[in-house]
Amino acid sequence: MTERIRDFLRDRRAAGIEDGPVLVVDLDVVRENYAKFARALPDTRVFYAVKANPEPKLLALLANLGSCFDTASVAEIQMALAAGATADRISFGNTIKKERDIARAMQLGVRLFAVDCEAEVEKIARAQAATGAEDVRVFCRILCDGAGAEWPLSRKFGCEPDLAIDVLEHAHRLGLEAYGVSFHVGSQQANPEAWDGALASASRIFRELAERGIRLSMVNLGGGFPTKYLKDVPAVEAYGESIFRALSKHFGNRLPETIIEPGRGMVGNAGIIESEVVLVSQKSKDADEMRWVYLDIGKFGGLAETMDESIRYDIRTAHDEDRRVPCVLAGPTCDSADVMYEKTPYWLPLSLEIGDLVHIEGTGAYTSTYSSVAFNGLPPLRTYVI
Amino acid sequence: MTERIRDFLRDRRAAGIEDGPVLVVDLDVVRENYAKFARALPDTRVFYAVKANPEPKLLALLANLGSCFDTASVAEIQMALAAGATADRISFGNTIKKERDIARAMQLGVRLFAVDCEAEVEKIARAQAATGAEDVRVFCRILCDGAGAEWPLSRKFGCEPDLAIDVLEHAHRLGLEAYGVSFHVGSQQANPEAWDGALASASRIFRELAERGIRLSMVNLGGGFPTKYLKDVPAVEAYGESIFRALSKHFGNRLPETIIEPGRGMVGNAGIIESEVVLVSQKSKDADEMRWVYLDIGKFGGLAETMDESIRYDIRTAHDEDRRVPCVLAGPTCDSADVMYEKTPYWLPLSLEIGDLVHIEGTGAYTSTYSSVAFNGLPPLRTYVI
Repeated sequence: MTERIRDFLRDRRAAGIEDGPVLVVDLDVVRENYAKFARALPDTRVFYAVKANPEPKLLALLANLGSCFDTASVAEIQMALAAGATADRISFGNTIKKERDIARAMQLGVRLFAVDCEAEVEKIARAQAATGAEDVRVFCRILCDGAGAEWPLSRKFGCEPDLAIDVLEHAHRLGLEAYGVSFHVGSQQANPEAWDGALASASRIFRELAERGIRLSMVNLGGGFPTKYLKDVPAVEAYGESIFRALSKHFGNRLPETIIEPGRGMVGNAGIIESEVVLVSQKSKDADEMRWVYLDIGKFGGLAETMDESIRYDIRTAHDEDRRVPCVLAGPTCDSADVMYEKTPYWLPLSLEIGDLVHIEGTGAYTSTYSSVAFNGLPPLRTYVI
Repeated sequence: MTERIRDFLRDRRAAGIEDGPVLVVDLDVVRENYAKFARALPDTRVFYAVKANPEPKLLALLANLGSCFDTASVAEIQMALAAGATADRISFGNTIKKERDIARAMQLGVRLFAVDCEAEVEKIARAQAATGAEDVRVFCRILCDGAGAEWPLSRKFGCEPDLAIDVLEHAHRLGLEAYGVSFHVGSQQANPEAWDGALASASRIFRELAERGIRLSMVNLGGGFPTKYLKDVPAVEAYGESIFRALSKHFGNRLPETIIEPGRGMVGNAGIIESEVVLVSQKSKDADEMRWVYLDIGKFGGLAETMDESIRYDIRTAHDEDRRVPCVLAGPTCDSADVMYEKTPYWLPLSLEIGDLVHIEGTGAYTSTYSSVAFNGLPPLRTYVI
């Protein structure tokens, strides 16, 4: 909780104009996070992952600080442009794109595209031919095991390194620039050493393509940089050092150009959700039975990352000095799946009451845009950027 | 797929005005479903669960057919009123309500409220005192085991029957009408006999309260009536017969007033989502490796019920006569959790290609309002009611 957010929420309550949960994002924290990334990885360009939080004021701040932008759709490209980023600072980082969206992106000036298979390379080549875009660069995403990450990393994005070599060669053959390799070590990655294995694969791809006369330039180190939820996480500096060591180990003194795509690590700790306790109850007459605490926000209102209890937020109340008891924490909808923490109950003050406000910390990323459009008639999470 | 939906989609494609997935709901099917419920349970009032799909035209049709409405929020109450339902045909069926929302509901004329604990009863009594609403009725939800249901039923709603007796007595003491008992056998309930155990508990609560001089009137049989996805489900008639048998068994010749709250069973099979194949790929050079098929809709665009692979939709393509192979089915977002079917792969035609349209059947319920407001910059699912 920052002083600016505390003041904002107090003034808002005093004005008494609104009801329901609200997310407040403090730009001072984002500015600080950006500076930390720049310091920890001085030779690496930052591509902010717009999907983490696309609030216009936030994008404008980052554009102004010199950030580049990793986008997932044409709409996100347009948001980054509207925020003041030039097209050469935008990558279309989604490996799953409609061909007409690739063409639209090219028409908007974007030249950097992610792929993970030959079919996607072919779409890009056709879109290039159709739009006449020049100097189109592609990077191929490779699979990573994701060990150490809190948010599940599936095999959805990326291909095996051996296939990546063919994919990049195919791009080269079709007149695109085979630009580099990307990977993702898994979101909320608690292990700063997690980049080592993927960098070993990347350097092998660089070597094998060099033998075929194709010179790659760039390694996209992806995101995965954690934000602090309940558990402490290593500082950005530790990630910077570990990544630099791994780069030197695998690439020697011919270091590639590098980029990172922080999303959670850039805005997670800049946001706080204020929510209201709607109900506290028990399911039976047994006084020892688990308490249920229901908030006015849940899995469908912005806290989707509590799915499978993956992300465990730090929740602060006005009674945190009091005795705590284990509680099941649930959302306000009529959906039985809208339960956030049950397998591992959440310890909350026994004195917490209906009507109390709670503050869910570290909610600046992957909350507002995840929220349902109108499930149960409830409006999406409102955001204020201050 | 109905002929009306097929024609609508063909005309829409011919007009070529839109991009992205779309849900089309055929009101003729809803009309038929309503008639089936009315025939199968002739003495039971239907309270349509608005949360399943709150499209205005759909609510207007149901209001016109005589349906009542089960609502989860003040916004849903307002939608039901706007559709032409009078307030006496609306229940506020969410057991988790803010006291000020209860008061707003009373000001809108609603008199029927769900509870599952004494604290909720007290909110209702205070809201009644504050608004001067008369003849306020409450029913208490009891826990059910949910065996046989496809969508997980947690312990989120309801209390143990012994506690329900106290809760209803508390309501009576506070000047509310202790009106009845409700339960839910679990959504997409494949077993028509599932109501028996809960009705046994309900009749015991009726008897015990009668001994304390409190006469309950109503049993709310909840929802749970299935719609056809991949597997066949029993017909509504089988549910009607089984429920009637269980009611007679437990209540003898003093049958209570009954209501049902179908949502999925009313609109599930009335809707079809048309989606486009964005990418088909493999993760390695091994030709036997699993294929990945990516659609332009996924877990965050309206198919949230694929969570944990709970609901398995029937997906039709133009190549359904061709040889099928197992595929992982995933959505279009840059989120690694946006994978729909992987543990149990989905068999799709080998000839299915990028750009092909697919039809996801049985998607009339729990899709459009679940969709994210703007995750990855993608717009929420568009709905057409025809």
